[in-house]
Amino acid sequence: MGVDAQQRRMVGWRNRRFVDLVGTEHPIIQAPMAGAAGVDLCVAAIKGGALGSLPCAMLTPDEVHAQVAEVRRRARGPLNLNFFCHRMPAQADDSAWRALLEPYYREFGVEPASGGALRLPFDEAMCAVVEGVRPEVVSFHFGLPDERLLDRVRAAGTTVIGNATTIDEARFLQDHGADAIIAQGAEAGGHAGRFLGADPAEAMGLFALLPQIADAVRVPVIAAGGIGDARGIAAAFVLGASAVQLGSAYLHTPEARISDSHRQALKSGRTVVTNLMTGGLARGARGRLIDELGPVRTEAPQYPLASAALAPIRAAAERRGEHGFGPMWAGEAAALGERLPAAELTRKLAETAVALLSATR
Amino acid sequence: MGVDAQQRRMVGWRNRRFVDLVGTEHPIIQAPMAGAAGVDLCVAAIKGGALGSLPCAMLTPDEVHAQVAEVRRRARGPLNLNFFCHRMPAQADDSAWRALLEPYYREFGVEPASGGALRLPFDEAMCAVVEGVRPEVVSFHFGLPDERLLDRVRAAGTTVIGNATTIDEARFLQDHGADAIIAQGAEAGGHAGRFLGADPAEAMGLFALLPQIADAVRVPVIAAGGIGDARGIAAAFVLGASAVQLGSAYLHTPEARISDSHRQALKSGRTVVTNLMTGGLARGARGRLIDELGPVRTEAPQYPLASAALAPIRAAAERRGEHGFGPMWAGEAAALGERLPAAELTRKLAETAVALLSATR
Repeated sequence: MGVDAQQRRMVGWRNRRFVDLVGTEHPIIQAPMAGAAGVDLCVAAIKGGALGSLPCAMLTPDEVHAQVAEVRRRARGPLNLNFFCHRMPAQADDSAWRALLEPYYREFGVEPASGGALRLPFDEAMCAVVEGVRPEVVSFHFGLPDERLLDRVRAAGTTVIGNATTIDEARFLQDHGADAIIAQGAEAGGHAGRFLGADPAEAMGLFALLPQIADAVRVPVIAAGGIGDARGIAAAFVLGASAVQLGSAYLHTPEARISDSHRQALKSGRTVVTNLMTGGLARGARGRLIDELGPVRTEAPQYPLASAALAPIRAAAERRGEHGFGPMWAGEAAALGERLPAAELTRKLAETAVALLSATR
Repeated sequence: MGVDAQQRRMVGWRNRRFVDLVGTEHPIIQAPMAGAAGVDLCVAAIKGGALGSLPCAMLTPDEVHAQVAEVRRRARGPLNLNFFCHRMPAQADDSAWRALLEPYYREFGVEPASGGALRLPFDEAMCAVVEGVRPEVVSFHFGLPDERLLDRVRAAGTTVIGNATTIDEARFLQDHGADAIIAQGAEAGGHAGRFLGADPAEAMGLFALLPQIADAVRVPVIAAGGIGDARGIAAAFVLGASAVQLGSAYLHTPEARISDSHRQALKSGRTVVTNLMTGGLARGARGRLIDELGPVRTEAPQYPLASAALAPIRAAAERRGEHGFGPMWAGEAAALGERLPAAELTRKLAETAVALLSATR
């Protein structure tokens, strides 16, 4: 038995459904966080034994190719590419939204032209990238791509992960071929991946959502949202999870590309659900825009269009060192995180969680 | 060693902070649920080894005396009396609310006169009852009574439990003398006990709230909200709880006094936060009133006043067998419950949770 295999034995995850499915050392996924997670974080997470993720919704096919090549060069281990599956709305009339933002255009001396990269849904071109780079795992947010594209992803030998915020969504994902399902609690930072139904009041807390999804599907369930430390990982396994996906915990690492304001905000422990950044409901720390306009405005056009009119303001503000005009995503347990390099953090969380679970049936 | 003591040993809760504080066999509280929990449920919960609770906010002092006497006659074990500590608002103008309800007054042929018992805050008279009946435990919802009354409760030898929905509220309760603190997650059925701050968007899921409260206070923490079965109890202990408070789980028991419609609704797994029943935000199953008016209306006067104008409609509807005009409180994990007598349910949940936790450090 080699050292690696020995170490794996010592670590002793009893529920091995996810690690056996994807081949990682630990049943931990570094959450793909568009804008905050890049190659460095992904590489470090893989080196720590987690499933490293690259958020691809704001990248071009060439950028995905380049980032995957760099990850492969720097780390050996399973890799997850994350894509969004929202329906792109027809360009909406965002005049009310621009009118609301007018004082900021004036303050920062920028034109109300749109700009910035929109979050784009998984398409033919990205499917060809997946077929080319053959990631071990692809995860989808906001549902799944159409059957034809999904069949091609699966034919490339890729494990498919879907994201559910309700029990109905979990059943849908299993019925449409997901190999594993994220149970995303309402505590999660970033965008709620809701794709069936539209009432945000139906969002559920992880404590109630996770065991009910675990009971409803046969595939391994990955817990996400509100898991801030090893206690949360262990508790998720007790509730039926076979893995966890951690976002905010990794935002504390030096590998995460976030502003100092965002790092400070993570420690405050206060989050709010806002639609100001993209038009979609997402949880994050407050900043000046949310403080001044309120977190949810009907003037914001449909996801993901709201980010366009905001982009020039955000860019100008950030040049002045103001970060309250862009997303500072954070989950409800973000304050539990600690600043450690991502590989070390992964190993520490895994060891502590295994110790907590060590003799749990 | 007597049989009781032997059994207690066999049960083997490792975290004994709560059971040592209040003297129950199991660290389980049968939630006080005004309208649904009475003497029968309380007695059965005590017989199962839980802390039995009597909800007193809608009772007169004489009724509390009588119910306590009956519980004492029928069961031996610690008893919790639950009171509310909201500030009673000046009688508000509820003409907009009555206008909204006008079609129902006509449909059910009742007068828009107010009626029904309002939920009343803990006061001098109830404090005298506590001094007279000396319950082992008193729990307060919506904060704590003023210092003078609280001192009298404590002088009666009573353990005081407060309810926190945020970390700030938990610190406040500890600073003001609570002996144990409920961490009430947003998943909980019934009224959110928020008493500091007013923004309902700050409500947190139990997964994130519980470990952060456990870290913030020195007193034992009781987890509530979204705990539907033994997995939830065990997970709560992993996250730092020393006890759990179960509401929906006990609503499935034959001892709970709820309608068949309410029992059916528990199994649906769908809940919503509404202010229609009392004016305060509370989680429950949908019914006709919520379906027709929407769950949250600004016309509803401040808690607890909204229930008054609704009372004659509710009474008339229930005489016709329609239960959608009164509260059908339920938490997000209500569907996980099973129909068993309350004493048997308590013992089964305790044994299963202990087994799950048996060798957890």
